[in-house]
Amino acid sequence: MIKVAVTGATGYAGGEVLRLLLSHPEVEVGALTAASTAGSRFGQHQPHLLPLADRIVAETTPETLAGHDVVFLALPHGASGAVAAQLPDDVLVIDCGADHRLESSQDWADYYGGEHAGTWPYGMPELITGSSRQRAALAGARRVAVPGCNVTAVTLGLQPAVAAGLVETTDLVAVLANGYSGAGKSLKTHLLASEGLGAALPYAVGGSHRHIPEIAQNLTKAGAPEVTISFTPTLVPMARGILATATARLAEGIDEAQVRAAYEDAYGDEPFLHLLPEGQWPTTAATLGANTAQIQVAVDERAGRLVTVTAIDNLVKGTAGAAVQSMNLALGLPETTGLTTIGVAP
Amino acid sequence: MIKVAVTGATGYAGGEVLRLLLSHPEVEVGALTAASTAGSRFGQHQPHLLPLADRIVAETTPETLAGHDVVFLALPHGASGAVAAQLPDDVLVIDCGADHRLESSQDWADYYGGEHAGTWPYGMPELITGSSRQRAALAGARRVAVPGCNVTAVTLGLQPAVAAGLVETTDLVAVLANGYSGAGKSLKTHLLASEGLGAALPYAVGGSHRHIPEIAQNLTKAGAPEVTISFTPTLVPMARGILATATARLAEGIDEAQVRAAYEDAYGDEPFLHLLPEGQWPTTAATLGANTAQIQVAVDERAGRLVTVTAIDNLVKGTAGAAVQSMNLALGLPETTGLTTIGVAP
Amino acid sequence: MIKVAVTGATGYAGGEVLRLLLSHPEVEVGALTAASTAGSRFGQHQPHLLPLADRIVAETTPETLAGHDVVFLALPHGASGAVAAQLPDDVLVIDCGADHRLESSQDWADYYGGEHAGTWPYGMPELITGSSRQRAALAGARRVAVPGCNVTAVTLGLQPAVAAGLVETTDLVAVLANGYSGAGKSLKTHLLASEGLGAALPYAVGGSHRHIPEIAQNLTKAGAPEVTISFTPTLVPMARGILATATARLAEGIDEAQVRAAYEDAYGDEPFLHLLPEGQWPTTAATLGANTAQIQVAVDERAGRLVTVTAIDNLVKGTAGAAVQSMNLALGLPETTGLTTIGVAP
Amino acid sequence: MIKVAVTGATGYAGGEVLRLLLSHPEVEVGALTAASTAGSRFGQHQPHLLPLADRIVAETTPETLAGHDVVFLALPHGASGAVAAQLPDDVLVIDCGADHRLESSQDWADYYGGEHAGTWPYGMPELITGSSRQRAALAGARRVAVPGCNVTAVTLGLQPAVAAGLVETTDLVAVLANGYSGAGKSLKTHLLASEGLGAALPYAVGGSHRHIPEIAQNLTKAGAPEVTISFTPTLVPMARGILATATARLAEGIDEAQVRAAYEDAYGDEPFLHLLPEGQWPTTAATLGANTAQIQVAVDERAGRLVTVTAIDNLVKGTAGAAVQSMNLALGLPETTGLTTIGVAP
Repeated sequence: MIKVAVTGATGYAGGEVLRLLLSHPEVEVGALTAASTAGSRFGQHQPHLLPLADRIVAETTPETLAGHDVVFLALPHGASGAVAAQLPDDVLVIDCGADHRLESSQDWADYYGGEHAGTWPYGMPELITGSSRQRAALAGARRVAVPGCNVTAVTLGLQPAVAAGLVETTDLVAVLANGYSGAGKSLKTHLLASEGLGAALPYAVGGSHRHIPEIAQNLTKAGAPEVTISFTPTLVPMARGILATATARLAEGIDEAQVRAAYEDAYGDEPFLHLLPEGQWPTTAATLGANTAQIQVAVDERAGRLVTVTAIDNLVKGTAGAAVQSMNLALGLPETTGLTTIGVAP
Repeated sequence: MIKVAVTGATGYAGGEVLRLLLSHPEVEVGALTAASTAGSRFGQHQPHLLPLADRIVAETTPETLAGHDVVFLALPHGASGAVAAQLPDDVLVIDCGADHRLESSQDWADYYGGEHAGTWPYGMPELITGSSRQRAALAGARRVAVPGCNVTAVTLGLQPAVAAGLVETTDLVAVLANGYSGAGKSLKTHLLASEGLGAALPYAVGGSHRHIPEIAQNLTKAGAPEVTISFTPTLVPMARGILATATARLAEGIDEAQVRAAYEDAYGDEPFLHLLPEGQWPTTAATLGANTAQIQVAVDERAGRLVTVTAIDNLVKGTAGAAVQSMNLALGLPETTGLTTIGVAP
Repeated sequence: MIKVAVTGATGYAGGEVLRLLLSHPEVEVGALTAASTAGSRFGQHQPHLLPLADRIVAETTPETLAGHDVVFLALPHGASGAVAAQLPDDVLVIDCGADHRLESSQDWADYYGGEHAGTWPYGMPELITGSSRQRAALAGARRVAVPGCNVTAVTLGLQPAVAAGLVETTDLVAVLANGYSGAGKSLKTHLLASEGLGAALPYAVGGSHRHIPEIAQNLTKAGAPEVTISFTPTLVPMARGILATATARLAEGIDEAQVRAAYEDAYGDEPFLHLLPEGQWPTTAATLGANTAQIQVAVDERAGRLVTVTAIDNLVKGTAGAAVQSMNLALGLPETTGLTTIGVAP
Repeated sequence: MIKVAVTGATGYAGGEVLRLLLSHPEVEVGALTAASTAGSRFGQHQPHLLPLADRIVAETTPETLAGHDVVFLALPHGASGAVAAQLPDDVLVIDCGADHRLESSQDWADYYGGEHAGTWPYGMPELITGSSRQRAALAGARRVAVPGCNVTAVTLGLQPAVAAGLVETTDLVAVLANGYSGAGKSLKTHLLASEGLGAALPYAVGGSHRHIPEIAQNLTKAGAPEVTISFTPTLVPMARGILATATARLAEGIDEAQVRAAYEDAYGDEPFLHLLPEGQWPTTAATLGANTAQIQVAVDERAGRLVTVTAIDNLVKGTAGAAVQSMNLALGLPETTGLTTIGVAP
C-alpha cells in the first residue's frame, strides 16, 4: 500500500483529496495535518469522511510527515514551498496550491508577488503539449503542481480548437459561474450563506485574477502563438462546480463540423473528458463528485466566435481529482485508479 | 385613479407588475385575467400579493378588459397581438412580451418566426438615442413594448461606452447568470428545483437566443455603426436576478478614467441606474425587488477589453419595473412614481 | 418628521430597520452607527440601500445618537443596556436585541447568564394578553423590547388555540426551518455559503435555545396555566424566512371547525396576520420582505394534535417590521404606516 | 456477475439505483426501462451516469426484463404490482415504491386507497424486530419492499429508544426538512426551481402523509405497544437530503446517559448508522451520496422529551442504498458491498 499524508486536511481541498484517497484501492491514509485545527478531532471538521472521524489532526512538521510515500499539500499559496523543502526528494509531493504552477517568474511577480518558489511538473494529464500530452511529463515525477480549478475548466474548453488552429488566441473571453468551495473555508463576510444565497456576483474583474497567466501558459503549450484573455469569475449559489463559458474568434472559414472533429479527435480517448452529443449542454450537476469535464461547443456564425462550455467539479477535476490522477501517473498506476466518471445528481 | 388590468396575472411577470402596482399611489387594480387559471382564486397562485388574495381570476376577453385605462399584457410571445387588437386606441397597452420590440421584420422572422406583429414604442427610458433618451418617445404613448430582461442588462452595461465611441461594437461578448423566474412558470423538467439546485447550465448557446437582435437594435440606436455579439445566458440557482458580464474591445488609447467619466456622464442623472464606486462590484442581491441596475466597469489593459458587470432584478428593472416606469412616462406621471431603488437583502 | 438613528446599522437587523424606515412617510433617517465598521462608507456594507450609500458610518456614542426622536438598537445581546442608559427618557428606544424581553430574572440567568438589564414593554402588538392585546401597552411607550424572531413565529402560531383553551400547553413541540440571516453577519465556519448550500442542520437542540423562556412568557400571557415546549430550530439554505411547525395536544373533543373559528376570531382583524384558506399552506416565499405572518392549522385526529404552521420573514415580522410597528404605536401613528403585507416572490 | 435491470431508470430513484450499481463489483447493468422516455438516449435524462450515456431506454415489458437476476422497480405507487406479477419467482425483485411495504390492508386502504398489492419482506436491515434485526428476514428473499425515505429517517431516529422502553410512543412528533428529489421528477408548479429557491413550505400536514402507517408498523416491531405520531414534512431548498427531528416523551426517570447507552448499544455495530459524538449535530451535507444515517440525541429535561435528529440522503439510505443493501443480503453478498459511508461535501 502507498502511504499518503495530507496537509491542510481540514480544509476543502484537503478534505476532497482524502475523500478520493479513501476509495483508492492502493492507498493507505496516513497523517492528517493542519495549522489552526491541529489537535482537534477530524470528524468535527469533515463529518462526511466517516472512516477518519475519530482521527486527531496533527501539526504540519517534518516528523508528522515522515514515513509517507506521498504528501499532498493543500495549503494557501506561499506556504507550500517551505513544507516541500523539508521533504526528501524521493517522496512524491503534490501541491494543490499555486506556488509551483507558473514557469515565468515574471508572471509570478506580476500576479502573486514575492519570490517565485520554482516550477514543478504540471498536473494536467490531458494538456496538449505539441504532439504529446502532459501525462508523459508526469510519469515518475516526484513533484507535481496541481492546476488551478478555473484554469482547468478554461484550458479544457479551448485547447482542442487552439491546438488545431481553428481560433485566434489573442482575444479570448471567458466568464465562469463558480461554486463557493473554490474560495476555501475562509471567514469572510462575502462568503457567508446569508450573502451568497440568492445572489450572483463577480470578483477579480478586469484582468487581476491569478489564474490568467496559467491559462496563457497552457494554451501556449497547446500551440497558441500568443494568448490574451479577458477572464471573469462569478460566484453563484452552489457549493461546488464551475461552468466556464469560453469563447474565441474563429479563424477564417471554420465551420462547426471542423470544430466538432477537432474536439472528438483531441478528447475521444480521454477517460475523463466528455464531449456531449450535439444539442446537449453541460450542467455542473452532472459532474458533482466526478473527475469528469463535460464539454460542448457551438459555432456562432453571426458573431464569428466559437463558444465552448465546460462543466467540472472544482474540487474534483479542478483540484483533488487532478491531484490523484497525477499521483497515479507519477507512481505508474493505471491513470484512472480510484477515480470515477459518475456524478452525484440530482 | 388610473384603472389597470393585467392579463397573464397568475404568471411571474404578471404577478410582478401587480406587486408594483399595489404600491403605486395613482393606480387602482382592476381585472386580473389569465388563460388556464381563469376561474380560480388569485391567492392560490400569488400568495405573496395578500391584498388581492380573494379575487377570482377572469378570462382574457374584451369584456373583462373593458373599462380600464391601462392594460398590461404578460403573455407568451405571439399572444399579445390578438389581445391588443381588441383594445381601443386610447387605452394604454403595455406588452411585457416580445411581440412588439423589434423594428426589423427580418429579425423577427430569423429569431422568432411567423408574422411580425409590428413595432411599438420601446419601453427602456434610459436608452441612449443619439443626443436624447428613449423616454422622450414614451411621453403620451398608448402602446409600449417592454424590453427583454437580458437585453436590459446588456444594453445598460454597454451603451455609455458605445455612445461615447470608446469601444468597438463588432465583437461584443456577453455571458449572463440568470435566475429561474426568467424562464416563467412553465412545467419543464430542467426547470424543476431538483435539477436546478446546486447546478449551473447554459441555454440558447451559439447565437440562437432571441434577445440578440434586440440588443443590436439598442446599441445601434446608442451609436454603434454595426453590432455583433456573442451572447450566452446561464441558469444559476436563484429565483431572481441577472448578472450580466458584457465585454467589448477598447478603442485605441482609451483608459479607465475616460470610461468612468462616460458612465458617470451617461448615468449620473438617471434615477434607477447606479455606477458603483471604484472597487465595489455589483451583486444581484442588492437589486432584489428594486428597479435599479447596479453597474461597474473595468479596463483590462492586458486583454484590451472593457469589462462591464450589470446586476438587475429580471422581474423588476428587467420587466415589471420597466413596464411601470414606461406607464408613468406615457401617462405624464413622475417617472419614479411607485418604484423604489431599495433592494431586499440579504 | 421623526428623526431616527440606528445603531448596528451595518448588520442584518439594522439594515432591515433602515430598509423599512426609508419607505416610512413620517421618518427622516439620521445617524447610522456601528462598532467595527465605523468610519467606512455605508454602501459598502448595505449596497441594497441605495439612498444611504454615500453615508459614512458613525461610532455609537451619546453624541452621535443625540438629537433623535427614536433610536433603534440592533446590537448583540448584552450591549443594549449600556447604550440605552445614556439616552434621555423621552427618546423612544427600540431594542431589537434580547436584553429587555424577559420579565423573569431567573429566566435571564438560566438562558443568557449575567445580570438582567430589566424589562421593557414587549413589542408584539398582536400578543393576546387576557381580553386585550399587547398593542395597548405600547401606546406612548418610550422603551420597547422587540421579540425574538423564532418567538414571534411560534407565538403567533399557537396563541389563538392557547387563549381559547383548545390545547394543552404542557407538551408543545416546535421545529423550525430558519434562514441564515437569523444568525447575523458573524464570521463562523458553519455560516459559510459552502457549508450551508445544500444542507439542513439543527442547532441549540434539547432545550438550550434562548427563545424558549420568551415563548413560555408569551403563551402564559395568552392564557396558558403552564408552558413546556420542546423547541428545535434548523438552518436550511435560504437567506431569510422562518417556517415554524408548532404542535400541541388537543383538549378533549375539539374539532377542526372550532380551531379555525378561534383563529379567525383572533386574527380576523389583525392587519398583518393571515389565516390561509383551507387547503393552502404557508410558504416563506410569500412573506419575503413583508410584515405578514401566514398561518395555517390542521387537526390531526389520529395523533390527537393540533398542527400549526407559520411563515414569516425573520428580518421583517420577526425583527424590523415588529420594531417599526411598535414605533408607530408608541408614537401614536397608524399602526401599519410604512409597512406592507405584500411579499416579493418568486 | 449479477445481471440487473432497472425500471423507471430515467427517474430520480432509478437513476440513483444505477449510480450505486455502477460501482458495485458484482453487478452488470442490464436493461434500462421506462414508460414515457422509452426510445430516447439515456444520457439525455441522467447525464451524470456517463458509462450508460449512450444506452437507449427500453420499454418496460416482460421481454426487456427477461434474463436478469435482479429487477429494481422504481415506479409510482400502484404500478409495481403488475410488473412484478410478470416476473419469475426466482428473480429478485426489489420495489422502491410503496406497494408492498404495509402489512395491514386497512392501512393501505386508509392512506393509499385501492387494492393492497400484498406485503413483501421489508428492506430495512437495521430495523429492530424483537431481539433480532430485519436483515435476518432478507437473507434469501426474492421480493423486497424498500422503505419510504421519511420512514427510514424517523424509524432510525427513534427505534433504539423505543426498543429500550425509554420513551412513550403514543405522542411522537416528527418534523422533517426534505430535499426536492424526494418528490420525484414530476412536473408540478410547486416543484419548480423558481418556487423552491429561497422558500420553506410544508406538505401533507395534519396526519395525511402516507409514510405515517409505515413508521407505526416499524416502531411496533421495535417494541412499541402502540404508536401515534404527528408527522410533518417540509420542503427546503436542497436537491437531496432529509433532516428528521423526531421527539418522544421520556419515560419516568430516564436521563441522557441511559439514552446514549441505548443508541450506542443498538447502532454500535451497524456499518451505516453513526451516532455522533456528544456536542456534534447531524447535517445532511455529510451524508450526500453516502448510505449513512448520522444521528444525534438530546434529553430536554425541562420539556420531558427526547429529541433525536437524523440526517440521511433520501436517495441513498432513503431509497437506492437501502435497495442495494437489501439486494446484497438477499443474494448472500457482504452487506456493505458497493456502498459507501463517505459523503460528498461541501
